[in-house]
Amino acid sequence: MPHDDRCIGVFDSGIGGLTVVREMRRRLPNERIVYFGDTARVPYGIKSPKVVTLFSRQIVDFLLRFDPKMIVVACNTASAAALPELEKQFDLPLVGVVKPGAREAVRAANGRPIAVIATEATINSDAYRRAIHSLLPRVPVHQRACPLFVGAVEEGRDSDDRVVAALAEDYVAPLRGLDPAVLVLGCTHYPLLKTAIARAIGSEVLLVDSAEQTAETVHAELNARGALTASPAAGNLTCYVSDNPQRFREIGQRFLGHPVVDVTWVSLDELVVADAHAPA
Amino acid sequence: MPHDDRCIGVFDSGIGGLTVVREMRRRLPNERIVYFGDTARVPYGIKSPKVVTLFSRQIVDFLLRFDPKMIVVACNTASAAALPELEKQFDLPLVGVVKPGAREAVRAANGRPIAVIATEATINSDAYRRAIHSLLPRVPVHQRACPLFVGAVEEGRDSDDRVVAALAEDYVAPLRGLDPAVLVLGCTHYPLLKTAIARAIGSEVLLVDSAEQTAETVHAELNARGALTASPAAGNLTCYVSDNPQRFREIGQRFLGHPVVDVTWVSLDELVVADAHAPA
Repeated sequence: MPHDDRCIGVFDSGIGGLTVVREMRRRLPNERIVYFGDTARVPYGIKSPKVVTLFSRQIVDFLLRFDPKMIVVACNTASAAALPELEKQFDLPLVGVVKPGAREAVRAANGRPIAVIATEATINSDAYRRAIHSLLPRVPVHQRACPLFVGAVEEGRDSDDRVVAALAEDYVAPLRGLDPAVLVLGCTHYPLLKTAIARAIGSEVLLVDSAEQTAETVHAELNARGALTASPAAGNLTCYVSDNPQRFREIGQRFLGHPVVDVTWVSLDELVVADAHAPA
Repeated sequence: MPHDDRCIGVFDSGIGGLTVVREMRRRLPNERIVYFGDTARVPYGIKSPKVVTLFSRQIVDFLLRFDPKMIVVACNTASAAALPELEKQFDLPLVGVVKPGAREAVRAANGRPIAVIATEATINSDAYRRAIHSLLPRVPVHQRACPLFVGAVEEGRDSDDRVVAALAEDYVAPLRGLDPAVLVLGCTHYPLLKTAIARAIGSEVLLVDSAEQTAETVHAELNARGALTASPAAGNLTCYVSDNPQRFREIGQRFLGHPVVDVTWVSLDELVVADAHAPA
């Protein structure tokens, strides 16, 4: 059997991408994963495509040191703003979170309207609407930015919190009147508020979680390339962050579903130097 | 009369420092102000002192190009985390926002307990408690981090918003039981939520706004040094940001109280290069 025992690189603006890692580890328990969280520059969701692309390029260049067989852009904002540019610049398979989520939304909606909630930058990029319409033109797509959800999750709030309830009512309830069949959680933080979001949109609307769909895409792509690991040993997760490893460890546990053990701080200087050596 | 017609440099992690600029322009209408907002790396409030100090040093070095007579650190997090280090490294007058706020709080509280609300990083630095105790040892100081207030303001929410009301209830109301005489708004964003915060803490508690106090300190310091401008012409405000000048223009108006006209984008590359040339 063809196989590839190299690691998979994963990155996010911060901690949210660990929801994707959690799903990847469920489906691919033997793979080694190297994760980078850009906690010194988080969040990306309020920043411009230009800056998000610059940061993403620096991170991919950093991850290349680990000789990955694939890199997963586990951040909706970076997938929406930077993935096409990264695909031009780097010569290895890259998987983002937007296309897998869009594909599942189209499948599940069965021609009925699709709603998308995400960060400001992801909504402004229009990436979800474009991905959905490339699969099924003219299906109605309603998009709504929910900026404070990320901060609420980072702060440790969950679906039972009254601030989260007020936010969900504010952001999500107005989408109800548009009668969507599906609501895409277009940000890796949102699955942690699933219950409050479901309450605000109504139980008849199906929630699509990009994390699950992305993990399935990673599995399918590696399989198609004959690049799954042949190792019988349990895989592992090594994390690098640009700031606050202790905070990452503490909050990361909620995203990953179990303790985040191996976290190393990388200075931004080192990232920027990596970028200077990158192909132009 | 001795005078100094050079500009005053001001910086913040993003847009909040414009509340300080607003107060400075009220008191010092003839001064020229050069402002830097680090919108590519905002917010600082969830980041480590190490990273906040690195970013602040890069920004001071950038502002030195304009030959300022003074630099105002119009960001509580940077004042709390980086000011002592900046004072060691740079040879010009630096004014932060923590000491002016602390001084006014001590004056107004008259020996009674003082409450402080600020970002996570500012609270963790313990800078307000130290500044207050250096003036009046042993007065009770109660500190509380309010992380989501910044995002709420950046999103355009105000005191009448139900999410802000829920947040104020959550963050501020518990301080009531500690019976403070004064509540320090230890973040440049918070003055925009004054009404909601006053409602949650109770009308008998005096709110201290660091922006006003800082502007008074700037005035007093320049006056004492004979460094006020002698120019009879109206001053002006020139802004530089590391991302999203358009967004800065739009949201900045709410902070400044009138339109922000002159905004230029500066790439992070340029900041980092400036830093490489800085004194070690």
